[in-house]
Amino acid sequence: MEMITGGVTAAKGFQAAAAAAGIKYQDRMDMAMIVSQVPAVTAGTFTTNVVQAAPVKWDKRLVMEESHARAVVVNAGIANACTGAEGMEYCKKTAEAVEHVLGISASQVLVASTGVIGMQLPMEKLTSGIEAMAPELKDTKESGHQAACAIMTTDTKAKEAAVTFEVEGRTVTLGGMCKGSGMIHPNMCTMLGFLTTDLAISKELLQEALREDIADTYNMVSVDGDTSTNDTVLLLANGMAGNPEIIQKDENYQKFKEALKYVNTALAKMMAGDGEGATALFETQVIHADTKEHARTLAKSVICSSLTKAAIYGHDANWGRILCALGYSGVTFDPEAIELFFQSKSGRIQIYQNGTAVNYSEEEATKILSDPEVTVLVDMKMGEEEAAAWGCDLTYDYVKINADYRS
Amino acid sequence: MEMITGGVTAAKGFQAAAAAAGIKYQDRMDMAMIVSQVPAVTAGTFTTNVVQAAPVKWDKRLVMEESHARAVVVNAGIANACTGAEGMEYCKKTAEAVEHVLGISASQVLVASTGVIGMQLPMEKLTSGIEAMAPELKDTKESGHQAACAIMTTDTKAKEAAVTFEVEGRTVTLGGMCKGSGMIHPNMCTMLGFLTTDLAISKELLQEALREDIADTYNMVSVDGDTSTNDTVLLLANGMAGNPEIIQKDENYQKFKEALKYVNTALAKMMAGDGEGATALFETQVIHADTKEHARTLAKSVICSSLTKAAIYGHDANWGRILCALGYSGVTFDPEAIELFFQSKSGRIQIYQNGTAVNYSEEEATKILSDPEVTVLVDMKMGEEEAAAWGCDLTYDYVKINADYRS
Repeated sequence: MEMITGGVTAAKGFQAAAAAAGIKYQDRMDMAMIVSQVPAVTAGTFTTNVVQAAPVKWDKRLVMEESHARAVVVNAGIANACTGAEGMEYCKKTAEAVEHVLGISASQVLVASTGVIGMQLPMEKLTSGIEAMAPELKDTKESGHQAACAIMTTDTKAKEAAVTFEVEGRTVTLGGMCKGSGMIHPNMCTMLGFLTTDLAISKELLQEALREDIADTYNMVSVDGDTSTNDTVLLLANGMAGNPEIIQKDENYQKFKEALKYVNTALAKMMAGDGEGATALFETQVIHADTKEHARTLAKSVICSSLTKAAIYGHDANWGRILCALGYSGVTFDPEAIELFFQSKSGRIQIYQNGTAVNYSEEEATKILSDPEVTVLVDMKMGEEEAAAWGCDLTYDYVKINADYRS
Repeated sequence: MEMITGGVTAAKGFQAAAAAAGIKYQDRMDMAMIVSQVPAVTAGTFTTNVVQAAPVKWDKRLVMEESHARAVVVNAGIANACTGAEGMEYCKKTAEAVEHVLGISASQVLVASTGVIGMQLPMEKLTSGIEAMAPELKDTKESGHQAACAIMTTDTKAKEAAVTFEVEGRTVTLGGMCKGSGMIHPNMCTMLGFLTTDLAISKELLQEALREDIADTYNMVSVDGDTSTNDTVLLLANGMAGNPEIIQKDENYQKFKEALKYVNTALAKMMAGDGEGATALFETQVIHADTKEHARTLAKSVICSSLTKAAIYGHDANWGRILCALGYSGVTFDPEAIELFFQSKSGRIQIYQNGTAVNYSEEEATKILSDPEVTVLVDMKMGEEEAAAWGCDLTYDYVKINADYRS
């Protein structure tokens, strides 16, 4: 497996474009489109929130009922959530607009929206955006990057990752983009993530690979504990790498899963590190847990703790809050047995053992906690399972961004 | 039932005192003591966190194993949590110091601590504090109030409530005090709450009444989602009202439960409204839910949502976040059927119906949301159950307080 630059246009046969449609933002691109040259088998995972945005309902039906998809249209600014029958109608009209300008059947057009809940989309602007993007579709890195920029809301950085790997002598590419950065506590998947690959693989295995992968990648991210109404990850595989179609869980399937894990982990970490108002990526690694599920629960409990997140912002080695968050996670363990460490590129320091603080240097701890990527390592001493979770610090800017998001 | 002023010294035969022991704060009182003239039957509820502070372990054993208690010693500044065997030893030494100066058996002395996790208590200062408080014990309102002030950490206001009611011609008094205001997401009970009554009641019924009551009072409060290692509510009943002892769930027991609900609800709301950095008490009332448990879960999910809390701070009627929080609570419902309202002393306004926003006045909504006590009313249209939960807004000051709490 080789890491390469690029995103949704990295794989063969995928084009992208972006447009400034003026949906809510007036000074930037706010629409993106991804198109596969040929029909692609498609997998999707969606929010578990009872309240589901219209595009989530639209995509769920298409991913389940249609054998292939060819295009994805995304807008930022308005989420098209809690918009009733009118909101569903806009999904249909968006797909029809793509059919009209590109000749792709509306039943092969997926849609996604992110932004304010409860407002209706300005349909004419969407249609104009699609008309503007159609002639601009390109398979260049630049067009993929523009798409990644256009889907941002409060994100400060575009998020892209890609890898290549070999399947039966053919080079296969997998690339993707995603966006955060508030209302991020994915349960099934992230806010919005789009992955493209030229791998030939059956629809069933594509869906299974994605479903399994997100449990350890997107679902281990939390910015603020709020599971969105719009969470969507779509994965399109168009087979243009020319490999023999993967139809069983063989060695090639495992290679693909490894690639998927790499790209999704990279995107998940970018999303966490660019959480609203964040100054640091805050990772928790749990090792030697008794079960995988317990490892995940413990890791996620720590990165979700508001008090711990605020302490990370203050570069304060307040390990008591970490122990507290492990304690209320719902997992049973012996607090006297576990060990805690802080680590970053500046070093690693043990802080807790045998039920009390180790006599560590506060100065060294503060130095480690001042790095832009900070890890808490929790050794449960109970078994062989491990998990990582990614969040960010809690800052003044998180409050600022969210106290007045709509205006 | 009559609401009266006062706190832990309101009931007959209870005295209190406070002292400046210099445990962590150097410029204020940081220790309190409550003493009952005669042995009192005692009930307690404690944190469900796997990591439990030494005083929690000490009190749990005493409440379970001893028939009566006579004193409670509380300190603020250091939590005596994650302090190993040494921490347990300090609980014993504290109780023995009370035995030494007041002649109360150490097995009848409860202890409670709040503050930084992981630091050891300065035992000589605690002992000096107890020696200083002993001659100052008084049954006056003022001494109760000083105790309520002394147990505060980041609280900005002392929290006291009291009521009287009649049992078989005798006037019974119930009073209490509690403290917040961070790491507040009680599961079994609040951070620290102390209740005293002169009612004569069996230990079994006292415990049952407290246990049932906290499910709808303290356990419906959240400031930041962090369930503390130290959560403790203690309830002492010394029987000095002279009523015939309550030994069954008769009318008198119900009167007591009503009084308990009033005092604990009042204290719970004070705690929520004085959450770290809060500018507003944020209440969510869920009505017409299908089950009581669902009503509680839905109400608590809304007051715990960081995004909703930030919007309340911004006086922003961002109802989509409320709907989102209901949706990820784990309770299944039809988003098209429910209705949402904002209300405060400035009025009441409907904002959501039939799956979309009602055409409400943003100006009026902002006016309602600018009050210091704001309520979201959620009508589930599913049944007859209801619940309320209390939180606060998320502000810059919450971050400020918690980014640098230890220094």
